[in-house]
Amino acid sequence: MKKLINAPEAVLADALKGIEAAHADLRVDHAGRVIYRATPKDQGTVALVSGGGSGHEPLHGGFVGFGMLDAACAGEVFTSPTPDQMQAATKEVDRGAGVLHIVKNYTGDVMNFEMAAELAAMEASVDVKTIVVNDDVAVQDSLYTAGRRGVGLTVLLEKIVGAAAEQGRSLDDLVALSEKVNGEGRSMGMALTSCTVPAAGKPTFDLPDDQMEIGVGIHGEPGRHRVPLADAHHIAEQLVEPILADLDFGSSPTIVMLNGMGGTPLIELYLMYGEVAAILQKHGVTIARNLVGNYITSLDMAGCSVTVLRADDELLSLWDAPVETAGLRWGR
Amino acid sequence: MKKLINAPEAVLADALKGIEAAHADLRVDHAGRVIYRATPKDQGTVALVSGGGSGHEPLHGGFVGFGMLDAACAGEVFTSPTPDQMQAATKEVDRGAGVLHIVKNYTGDVMNFEMAAELAAMEASVDVKTIVVNDDVAVQDSLYTAGRRGVGLTVLLEKIVGAAAEQGRSLDDLVALSEKVNGEGRSMGMALTSCTVPAAGKPTFDLPDDQMEIGVGIHGEPGRHRVPLADAHHIAEQLVEPILADLDFGSSPTIVMLNGMGGTPLIELYLMYGEVAAILQKHGVTIARNLVGNYITSLDMAGCSVTVLRADDELLSLWDAPVETAGLRWGR
Repeated sequence: MKKLINAPEAVLADALKGIEAAHADLRVDHAGRVIYRATPKDQGTVALVSGGGSGHEPLHGGFVGFGMLDAACAGEVFTSPTPDQMQAATKEVDRGAGVLHIVKNYTGDVMNFEMAAELAAMEASVDVKTIVVNDDVAVQDSLYTAGRRGVGLTVLLEKIVGAAAEQGRSLDDLVALSEKVNGEGRSMGMALTSCTVPAAGKPTFDLPDDQMEIGVGIHGEPGRHRVPLADAHHIAEQLVEPILADLDFGSSPTIVMLNGMGGTPLIELYLMYGEVAAILQKHGVTIARNLVGNYITSLDMAGCSVTVLRADDELLSLWDAPVETAGLRWGR
Repeated sequence: MKKLINAPEAVLADALKGIEAAHADLRVDHAGRVIYRATPKDQGTVALVSGGGSGHEPLHGGFVGFGMLDAACAGEVFTSPTPDQMQAATKEVDRGAGVLHIVKNYTGDVMNFEMAAELAAMEASVDVKTIVVNDDVAVQDSLYTAGRRGVGLTVLLEKIVGAAAEQGRSLDDLVALSEKVNGEGRSMGMALTSCTVPAAGKPTFDLPDDQMEIGVGIHGEPGRHRVPLADAHHIAEQLVEPILADLDFGSSPTIVMLNGMGGTPLIELYLMYGEVAAILQKHGVTIARNLVGNYITSLDMAGCSVTVLRADDELLSLWDAPVETAGLRWGR
């Protein structure tokens, strides 16, 4: 295993030191493993908390800041954070208007956030609501999930709902908005290679030189099928078509993300975006906004995913609103 | 070779299609292989042109836009663009105040930009000046270079000099500023793995599982030495110490970039940044600003580089000035 680390068991603690050193506008609770905004938002505003296993950076810590999250709980690599972490973060960021938990649909995350919400309500009277993101059209149930997995749409949801929270909208309003986003977005991913979890020391799965995994999960969970390696155009078709088969986007405006899995260079991500955009346009889908790069990764996995979100004027205007985080930054 | 491409010979053309599809504020000349701002800057303002082999994205095309470059010439992967491309770009962006060529020190790039400058001066009376960036302390001469290679400092120079150009400074003034930045900055890189050039179809060099290349070039050129794999702390020492041995930074403020080579996940880059920052601080170096991520890459190479730039108030204020490009964006 070749990695820029000190020791497999120290990866998360050491990475948190680097995040703190790099970003003066973040505050890191090293013992509790939570990343906060250095300057909390105003009293009376709903706060957003997310989190999950590490190894998906910039998700979630890179999306803490003005216009997105208030706190991100970091679990060990590909391991859910604990209810304790989530409860502490929830109590810490509550500004009296309630807290929204943004949870990717993995059984451990869902259970632990549920427990944290109950504890925060009971012990500190925090009003907590939850959105479980489940946008991955690849498989119905999966290795760590009942129902669809939560993947790339989480990035778009954190941006859009984060912008709405800054406007002072109510918790109920943000829940409704989150459900709208979750209902209107779909994703599909693929892998050319496995990732290697530091604690395991070897690739999560074997993938022969002439094959790829279509529909792979962000922890290397099996996808729909393993098929012969294809060119970028045919890979793009295998990602876009299941998305379009699952939801009729009509000719509505959409936000499209072409996301890298961590080990794929940007030149390939742009090349793939060109293919994806052309296929979507051929199907009459209108791309109003896009995002190309590494936003929800799987350690060093080579591969990519496509997310398509149908976005009306409300969603587009929230998307365009200013954001200031390590991972997304524009407009203020 | 596992890559998200259609064919090795189509990589650049296809990637340019994706860049155009993704960024409405860029204009791509597909035949000429030049990336321009969609909206040219004002008449009477000096324009900045850079370029080089592809495979280093976001450099240089990702740095075209307000506050940085006016045009980027894209060569084939790891191959210099031609004088024709550079001459066309130079004539196209000239707004009557001259054009600065920003060139990384590789023999092909230097020769071709020189020829382009002469042609543009002769045929179109464009006043062209050149800065050759040569910040890599690893080796004196290298596979494609006489003298030191130009690497990570190019990113910082394009940002700083780009900001100064927006202020309306003269060409001579920008040349002096470029020389100042080039004199005050140093870089050093390392690789855990080779990159694979699409046209070659196999890794550029072999690197055993228990070894790493210290001082590697951004095309996989040999570095200072091949040594046993070490932990992140000791890798950081092997990058920072040659930089500090080459230039005495004293306790002046610096801008530090921890750059990923393309195949290294962000969690490892943050971890490395934490180690680099701690070592610099131990040596009394003050970090005033930083950048962590993939900015000048080597296709899918796993590894990283460190750049340290001594930055007085002038350089820091130009660094902080607004920038709106695909690869760097803040503040407006």
